[in-house]
Amino acid sequence: MEVTRTLARFIVSHGRAELPQNVRHEAARSFLNWVGCAIGACRHETVDRALAALAEFSGPPQATVLGRGERLDAMLAAFINGTSSHVFDFDDTHLKTVIHPSGPVASAILALAERTPVKGEDFLHAFILGVEAECRIGNAVYPAHYDVGWHITGTAGVFGAAAAVGRLIGLSEEQMVWALGIAATQASGLREMFGTMAKPMHPGNAARNGMLAALLAAKNFTSSNRGIEAPRGFAHVLSTEFKPGEITDRLGETWEIALNTYKPYACGIVEHPAIDGCIQLRREHGLKAEDIASVLLKVNPLVLELTGKKTPQTGLEGKFSVYHSTAVAIVHGAGGEAQYSDEAVRDPRVIALRDKVTAVVDRTMHEDQVHVSIKMKDGGMLEKFVEHAVGSLARPMSDLDLEAKFRGQVERTLSKPETDRLVGLCSDIGRLGDAGEVARASVPAHTGARRAAS
Amino acid sequence: MEVTRTLARFIVSHGRAELPQNVRHEAARSFLNWVGCAIGACRHETVDRALAALAEFSGPPQATVLGRGERLDAMLAAFINGTSSHVFDFDDTHLKTVIHPSGPVASAILALAERTPVKGEDFLHAFILGVEAECRIGNAVYPAHYDVGWHITGTAGVFGAAAAVGRLIGLSEEQMVWALGIAATQASGLREMFGTMAKPMHPGNAARNGMLAALLAAKNFTSSNRGIEAPRGFAHVLSTEFKPGEITDRLGETWEIALNTYKPYACGIVEHPAIDGCIQLRREHGLKAEDIASVLLKVNPLVLELTGKKTPQTGLEGKFSVYHSTAVAIVHGAGGEAQYSDEAVRDPRVIALRDKVTAVVDRTMHEDQVHVSIKMKDGGMLEKFVEHAVGSLARPMSDLDLEAKFRGQVERTLSKPETDRLVGLCSDIGRLGDAGEVARASVPAHTGARRAAS
Repeated sequence: MEVTRTLARFIVSHGRAELPQNVRHEAARSFLNWVGCAIGACRHETVDRALAALAEFSGPPQATVLGRGERLDAMLAAFINGTSSHVFDFDDTHLKTVIHPSGPVASAILALAERTPVKGEDFLHAFILGVEAECRIGNAVYPAHYDVGWHITGTAGVFGAAAAVGRLIGLSEEQMVWALGIAATQASGLREMFGTMAKPMHPGNAARNGMLAALLAAKNFTSSNRGIEAPRGFAHVLSTEFKPGEITDRLGETWEIALNTYKPYACGIVEHPAIDGCIQLRREHGLKAEDIASVLLKVNPLVLELTGKKTPQTGLEGKFSVYHSTAVAIVHGAGGEAQYSDEAVRDPRVIALRDKVTAVVDRTMHEDQVHVSIKMKDGGMLEKFVEHAVGSLARPMSDLDLEAKFRGQVERTLSKPETDRLVGLCSDIGRLGDAGEVARASVPAHTGARRAAS
Repeated sequence: MEVTRTLARFIVSHGRAELPQNVRHEAARSFLNWVGCAIGACRHETVDRALAALAEFSGPPQATVLGRGERLDAMLAAFINGTSSHVFDFDDTHLKTVIHPSGPVASAILALAERTPVKGEDFLHAFILGVEAECRIGNAVYPAHYDVGWHITGTAGVFGAAAAVGRLIGLSEEQMVWALGIAATQASGLREMFGTMAKPMHPGNAARNGMLAALLAAKNFTSSNRGIEAPRGFAHVLSTEFKPGEITDRLGETWEIALNTYKPYACGIVEHPAIDGCIQLRREHGLKAEDIASVLLKVNPLVLELTGKKTPQTGLEGKFSVYHSTAVAIVHGAGGEAQYSDEAVRDPRVIALRDKVTAVVDRTMHEDQVHVSIKMKDGGMLEKFVEHAVGSLARPMSDLDLEAKFRGQVERTLSKPETDRLVGLCSDIGRLGDAGEVARASVPAHTGARRAAS
């Protein structure tokens, strides 16, 4: 079975008109979420340090660093934006493989779209095909490949970037076979790097190296024709299991992007039900922190195991405290990156409420469930059982939820009118005359002023 | 045991004065051989295609493409020169691991030395330390790692480039730990790519990505502190066996570069004894092809298994024909790339002699042995038993052999005076005031004219 060639043929020949509307819509949602993530972390020290090291080597100013405005050559811009979008681990998740699909693919083609303008409909199509390649290759080796120790977003991501870039630059079938092969021989990224800056570098590298693969193949730089399936190819060398049918079966009939999910909150997923429940109660009852006597959470055992920190001292520690997360959900009605700053953790209102929160293990609670009961100072009781936390496949974030998340991520970077315009461009990505407009619109008009203010 | 840290500490703290003279000398020999390989293939289509794809993205003209003269940013120049130097598979070999050590390391630091001038003695020291890191990491996982399917020149090479660049730019111990970690998470290169352009890309990628690792670490871009030895680090994820002592034992007492070898002939190593024997007979007896009635080779079984092609039609097929190799050794007294051109294979003198060669298996012959007997038309007999082919560890190429190889590799690119000067610079690399001079001296004064002539 010619796995690499079958996939290559599909990528170069699939007709845009055959894309179902729900697939296009989910792709636009993924893209919006990715842009927000990249902007949200664009001033993080991970990005600052990467730019400090590499800007000197940049070629012509072809593409934009999202949210910042430096212009770099397309390959380096893809690297930086891919890194930025994964810094907070707040990007999208293909739950079947734990791949973060958008980072490698969108980073590569958005940078490319600034070098050579491309219509939004072609951009969105290439994005969907790139994610398809990446997630199907992931499906074919998951979970064995991940268990070996590979960070699958890096290793599968390079194929996604190669496929999407290759489609946009019009590779032939043979050239796409080579692009996938050159991607295969660059697949890398170790789970050992989790917790360090080298982790978000993985989607950045995947974007850059995937673009490299497609650009080389376009000049007939050859590789093996069986980069994925050969005995010494990607699947057998980097995994102990390989299900080739996951790559070749029902191509064009099912779409992996339709299975994409988004994290509503910038913390461990086990805390999401509690945050969700508290935000719901806050909305429904106009809940105010000062009226609350106590909060009781009945939670899945993993919650206390992973996020049981009672008195976090830093923003990062706050992410591992279900008590802090519950408090900010009630005080701010949100669980974005801003709620996990050092300041947020030291806020007296948050601390006061945090100290009133009790969490007890209830083994009947699934991982995406919680029972919240709030005792009011006036003696009243409020209760909420969350059956499926928002952001799960069973209860996806709505378009409005995603927009609210986006606004939270960009608020330290963009003005309200700039944000409104960018939300519009991202949501309309499939109809833009020039997809690269999104990148340029991510940059605030007065970069210096807003930076000083933030 | 802190493997990564122990290695990092050694690389940043080793004193140049402690280097034995034979180690410096072997390093200069390795460097000369590498420069010759990079120039020898600089007009190959592999290099042409890579440049066609990537030159557009180059940053400032910091470094030279060896033999050609295009100036690219240091990272891209490292990639191109690393690729060029492995195109003909004629570069050096660390026989313990089959790593080609110089490509990843020299490509990275020579490009860097053009960006920021560096003294030859520091350059040579960094080169030796980079090769040490690369080969020791290779020793720790070979052969299991290679058997899994990894092209060890790519996977170990990235560490060598990171170590050498990191030493030259003055990383602290902690930064060197990070550089090795960032290298670990980029380790890649599949043996599946052998026989395609993606194979020589591996040392190019290793050079570029290793340089990236060191440059990022210099800006305190963090990684795991245990990139090599952690349960999810390089050794355990990319190999089924790990001998950490190969990395940490006797650092500074033994030197892997002292075990380096060089291929005298541009074909499969099993043919080397036959070529060697014929060249010796030619020298000793002023042998002329037209005086020969027949040639009989008694060879190790692998020779006919791998290189038994009787009537090669192209230069590439000539590399797999012990008959052709024997004929050119007698006709030209050489086995360089020029003897494996399409023209060389179609040369009537070579064909006439080739048809007079017989090879028979003799199981008493070791892989680096041959027995040659030549029957002259005048009835005389010439015989030669080669106990160890030149280029083996037991009978290394002499300095003169290496220089002759170098001259053969560059003759289509450089004039005689240019070649003389470059041989001098490479041999003197450890005493140059500015190591980058070598790169600039590799470019012919009249590039256009010589290209047209070649």
